[in-house]
Amino acid sequence: MNRLKLTVEYDGTEFHGFQKQGHLRTVQGELEAVLARVTRQSLPVVGASRTDAGVHARGQVVHVDIDETVQLPLEKWVHVLNRGLPPDLAVRKAERTTGDFHARFTARWKWYRYSLVMSRPSAFAVRYAARSLTLLDTGAMQAAAQLMVGERDFSSFCSTRAQQESKVRTIFAVDVARRGERGVIFDVRGNAFLHNMVRIMVGTLVQVGRGLVQPDAVQSILDDRDRRRAGPTAPAHGLCLWHIEYGSRDPSAVVSDIDDVQIGAI
Amino acid sequence: MNRLKLTVEYDGTEFHGFQKQGHLRTVQGELEAVLARVTRQSLPVVGASRTDAGVHARGQVVHVDIDETVQLPLEKWVHVLNRGLPPDLAVRKAERTTGDFHARFTARWKWYRYSLVMSRPSAFAVRYAARSLTLLDTGAMQAAAQLMVGERDFSSFCSTRAQQESKVRTIFAVDVARRGERGVIFDVRGNAFLHNMVRIMVGTLVQVGRGLVQPDAVQSILDDRDRRRAGPTAPAHGLCLWHIEYGSRDPSAVVSDIDDVQIGAI
Repeated sequence: MNRLKLTVEYDGTEFHGFQKQGHLRTVQGELEAVLARVTRQSLPVVGASRTDAGVHARGQVVHVDIDETVQLPLEKWVHVLNRGLPPDLAVRKAERTTGDFHARFTARWKWYRYSLVMSRPSAFAVRYAARSLTLLDTGAMQAAAQLMVGERDFSSFCSTRAQQESKVRTIFAVDVARRGERGVIFDVRGNAFLHNMVRIMVGTLVQVGRGLVQPDAVQSILDDRDRRRAGPTAPAHGLCLWHIEYGSRDPSAVVSDIDDVQIGAI
Repeated sequence: MNRLKLTVEYDGTEFHGFQKQGHLRTVQGELEAVLARVTRQSLPVVGASRTDAGVHARGQVVHVDIDETVQLPLEKWVHVLNRGLPPDLAVRKAERTTGDFHARFTARWKWYRYSLVMSRPSAFAVRYAARSLTLLDTGAMQAAAQLMVGERDFSSFCSTRAQQESKVRTIFAVDVARRGERGVIFDVRGNAFLHNMVRIMVGTLVQVGRGLVQPDAVQSILDDRDRRRAGPTAPAHGLCLWHIEYGSRDPSAVVSDIDDVQIGAI
């Protein structure tokens, strides 16, 4: 048995999220379909993150167990799978791992990026960036964001549909930065995330940026453990699963071999 | 009468080109529809370039004559039009001009950019970049491209459907450059262009890059004035109308206030 680790990217616009759901078009469904055509076996794909409908990924990771009867050299997998995948879903990298590796359970940390434009997004960015109708105070958002860093109970920043018992997660870094004249990028890195957590964090920070919520209030919002205290859930299409780390790289340091490609650019 | 100059951008994927065609979805059609709603008048839009179906624009220019009864301050036009336009079409700038200005006839030069990836484009670039299945020799393409510069008869680089009598055009610059590890950008600036001209230039340069055509052969391809001598027409979706110059800026110089935004990035 070979366990294959695949790094995949997708434009989430036309997917009903990662996880398989009957006949709906999903990332897991497309990956399992192409694997079935290539291997003539029905192989379950295990993903690191169940991204929601409309959420993009440039560094989603999945694993799949390939039995010994499938004779395909490692360097051929990317090409063979991509040949069968639709244009909005691509395998970027294939690596051989052992049974010790698990896409979901052995991930050390994940990095999500949220993109927002303070005006109408360009015709080219509109699929990948949310919009703010007002100018936002980036400094206030960055200050508020620092109160989210650390090991915290994120009950207030979690969809009420979330099923996990413990709502404690560790956020290593939240960075809010201007990009160009009108763009704002939110980079959030943490050990694991609750359902809608990044989108609610961003929705709350946007309220801070608009002056509707004081930066300090984030502390009491966390303390209250009540979803209704936090801001709205920011739209799905601004969110991108940027990178998942399985090695020893530090989430607070710049990860030098992750090229800062801009989504949508070649 | 006020003549309004509008700079517009669009993702061409879901448009049947610029020019109005019955009930098909076109850029001109969408612009005229929103103008009719805003002004309650039927106002013809004159475009600088009739981009084909699938071709994108970040710097298309149109003009429209607004009569004195429409009372809308100049600074409101961008917002009011964008509010009524679909997400894949946006007005970037509105300027007041005089009857001397004509979007098509007073343009000094136009700049088209063609984007290509030497492998499968990413899930985010796939709408904006064509694909080459083989590695291309950028140096050979750049050398061949220089033979296209100057005042030339471009009959070989023109759709046989082109209606213009004279096929003489002046190309000021063609630059072929690597972008990142796998990207190639073709920047073409000229006084005017024939139908499919940039796409046939690129299709021919790609044959040079593959070693199928010698760089020097471009001279004889031009001399023969025969469409069949040039390469294939490169796919529409790699092409973008980047900028149209009406002022005195030199096409061979870097145009400093045109920010080199990457298509699709915020």
